[in-house]
Amino acid sequence: MDKHAGAVSELVDQLGRLPGVGRKSAERLAFHLLRVPEAEAIALADAIRRIRSDIRYCQACFNLCEEELCAICRSGDRDTTRLCVVEQPRDLMSLEQSQAFNGLYHVLLGRIAPLDGIGPDQLTIDALVDRVRNGNFSEVIMATNPNVEGDGTSLYISNLLAEFPVQITRLARGITAGSVLEYANREMIADALVGRQKL
Amino acid sequence: MDKHAGAVSELVDQLGRLPGVGRKSAERLAFHLLRVPEAEAIALADAIRRIRSDIRYCQACFNLCEEELCAICRSGDRDTTRLCVVEQPRDLMSLEQSQAFNGLYHVLLGRIAPLDGIGPDQLTIDALVDRVRNGNFSEVIMATNPNVEGDGTSLYISNLLAEFPVQITRLARGITAGSVLEYANREMIADALVGRQKL
Repeated sequence: MDKHAGAVSELVDQLGRLPGVGRKSAERLAFHLLRVPEAEAIALADAIRRIRSDIRYCQACFNLCEEELCAICRSGDRDTTRLCVVEQPRDLMSLEQSQAFNGLYHVLLGRIAPLDGIGPDQLTIDALVDRVRNGNFSEVIMATNPNVEGDGTSLYISNLLAEFPVQITRLARGITAGSVLEYANREMIADALVGRQKL
Repeated sequence: MDKHAGAVSELVDQLGRLPGVGRKSAERLAFHLLRVPEAEAIALADAIRRIRSDIRYCQACFNLCEEELCAICRSGDRDTTRLCVVEQPRDLMSLEQSQAFNGLYHVLLGRIAPLDGIGPDQLTIDALVDRVRNGNFSEVIMATNPNVEGDGTSLYISNLLAEFPVQITRLARGITAGSVLEYANREMIADALVGRQKL
């Protein structure tokens, strides 16, 4: 006999599919949603539906948006000579939150990952090459993730872009601000030494 | 300028209201819901709506259910001479999962908490007294939470039930299975000593 009422059980199952939400958390969240004012629960349900019905990709940079172009591509305040290439919209968001970059973005919507069956064709690389060919970018910053697949994707793209008169750079590697050398791993230390800067 | 598209931003806000879900987790969950098959996201949205439209309280024990009586009260297999009093439906569920109890339950839907303005009238204590008066229970097990408010609620109820010919018990207190004495706090040790059992 199922101890949950059917609708509770169903919600616990659905919540349990979310990343990082185990069975216990799912139960806790379900009971929370039973307890809050009904409008709050409905607002969450509607927000989930809306994110699937209203959101699409920016036609220029493949960021998420609700119109043809995203707010960044539509903005007149951005430096249109710099293009930052990221894997996912949330990477773009992290960069935006740093407020250290005021150029345009290009979202690949993934990284080349042969083991997962993801090749260059499944990404927005063709569109990126077109943008660089037709745009007036002076610099393309590769901001893929600092791991094997991200580095591989950057390398692949930088080869494609080599024919264009743009400077291709990548994010600096090194020790992270606020970290402790004692706990830094070998790769971090090596990156920091190789890229050492004048004081 | 908001960096999220409106619908993403809205969902991140809504998810961020869930207990234990911070801003970063909310963003991660929102992007997860953007990425999964649409049917999966919609299923979650519907499950949230359904839990609010279909769930009500069992007329007998105030457990959550979709009919007049919950599955436990409807079942013919339960020991109807034992009644276990819990604060919340999820406490009931924990007890059920232990499979150590086969009687009936009564859910108080809270605990007496004067500091939060919750008095006996806001709980289902009247209904509990009626059940004990009219039922044929031989034992009422108080399974409120082992803290000041839970204990106070149990004490209050046991005083009310004193006029009926039922035995009133509470869950055993002591050290927990699998724990380490070194880390047990004073209250746990005291409970374990007071309630020590014959070997």
